[in-house]
Amino acid sequence: MNVVLFEPGEPTTRLGGERAAHVIDVLGLGVGGRFRIGVIDGPLGTAEILAIENGVLTLACTLQDVVPAPSRIDLILALPRPKVLARLLSPIAQLGVRRLILTGAWKVERFYFDAHVLSEAEYRPKLIEGVAQAKDTRLPIVSVHRSIAFLLDHELDSLVPSATRVVVDPSGAMPLESALSSSPLVLAIGPEGGFTGRELGHLADRGFQAASLGSRVLRSDVATIAALARAHAVTG
Amino acid sequence: MNVVLFEPGEPTTRLGGERAAHVIDVLGLGVGGRFRIGVIDGPLGTAEILAIENGVLTLACTLQDVVPAPSRIDLILALPRPKVLARLLSPIAQLGVRRLILTGAWKVERFYFDAHVLSEAEYRPKLIEGVAQAKDTRLPIVSVHRSIAFLLDHELDSLVPSATRVVVDPSGAMPLESALSSSPLVLAIGPEGGFTGRELGHLADRGFQAASLGSRVLRSDVATIAALARAHAVTG
Repeated sequence: MNVVLFEPGEPTTRLGGERAAHVIDVLGLGVGGRFRIGVIDGPLGTAEILAIENGVLTLACTLQDVVPAPSRIDLILALPRPKVLARLLSPIAQLGVRRLILTGAWKVERFYFDAHVLSEAEYRPKLIEGVAQAKDTRLPIVSVHRSIAFLLDHELDSLVPSATRVVVDPSGAMPLESALSSSPLVLAIGPEGGFTGRELGHLADRGFQAASLGSRVLRSDVATIAALARAHAVTG
Repeated sequence: MNVVLFEPGEPTTRLGGERAAHVIDVLGLGVGGRFRIGVIDGPLGTAEILAIENGVLTLACTLQDVVPAPSRIDLILALPRPKVLARLLSPIAQLGVRRLILTGAWKVERFYFDAHVLSEAEYRPKLIEGVAQAKDTRLPIVSVHRSIAFLLDHELDSLVPSATRVVVDPSGAMPLESALSSSPLVLAIGPEGGFTGRELGHLADRGFQAASLGSRVLRSDVATIAALARAHAVTG
């Protein structure tokens, strides 16, 4: 945890529970100690410890005037197996996306949509952990879509107003970097085994260029981290 | 498994056990079916199933004349926690490195060196899994070094003859891409919490340029995948 994050509206004058234990035990701070804080989707800042009583910190906090800009990348991700998704949420939040758009696809098993990890109570702490690691405050906005056809035809334009659209696929004729610019980006990544030809055709109809990560076939979780890392290096 | 890999010297005319079960159950192949094979550190090829008896395949295999070129990237990785290393081995092999040089560092706990995952019997199957996923045959060459000072002063030059040397660190003045070329690369990645100033100084003395992955602080496992993905995009 490189930043201790508060919920929006939560008082920053007192801190107890796990976050206080982290400050005392991991950061090793006592009265007079200072640490980085942030408000989720709000500003970053600094806290000074005024007092510690029964594991509860009394704090004097200073918040910056500006709120960190949201990421310029939106990620459309074919819903992975629940265990894989649970493991991917923190890395996705560490690398930074504005929206995480989880979608069905031909090769996505229907029962994945019943997974606990799709409840906000499960995924939110994992995203907060990743955002705090990255010294950010902006939480990815998660939405879940059972039908990729409906997503592409009726929902995408309002979710993602104007951006370069790229689908990562081994069939892509160009390397990922060639499809990118400094514009905002929507990156689509298929399920294990890839999007079908029909899905790739539909994505192309909606303006997605196909780009490749190279000749090595990566598992979809590794491909997700690799593609986001490479996209951030260009798109910033 | 995108390629079924055989050990060097193992006969390719018969296949039983887990790999045969994979061909029958996951690939869904029967007599006459064909699948991609390879020999570890040898050529890729194709197998045709001539017969199946009690889960054992009789095969006719054709191997290519050329052996895939080894990766042009060597990775020096400060030894991660055993659980993290176990999880990272397949992604590292998927992305591809020639050598995986695991080293101690000030912030590497000494007991990590006692982990089971550092025995060849534990790490080799995980590397093979990653290499097979990537449709490659080249297994990373693993070595373990307790002292980074001794590694840099006495071992590195013979392990890695001539290559661009880059250490990934938040202090790096330039983005990773600016430090890279089409030459072979040795990439050094620190432990959770980073290399110390003294270690960074020693790396600089040995010709390592410091480069950064950006302003977001990534956990070391995510940083490893991100850095390898970005380096491969440039170095190939």
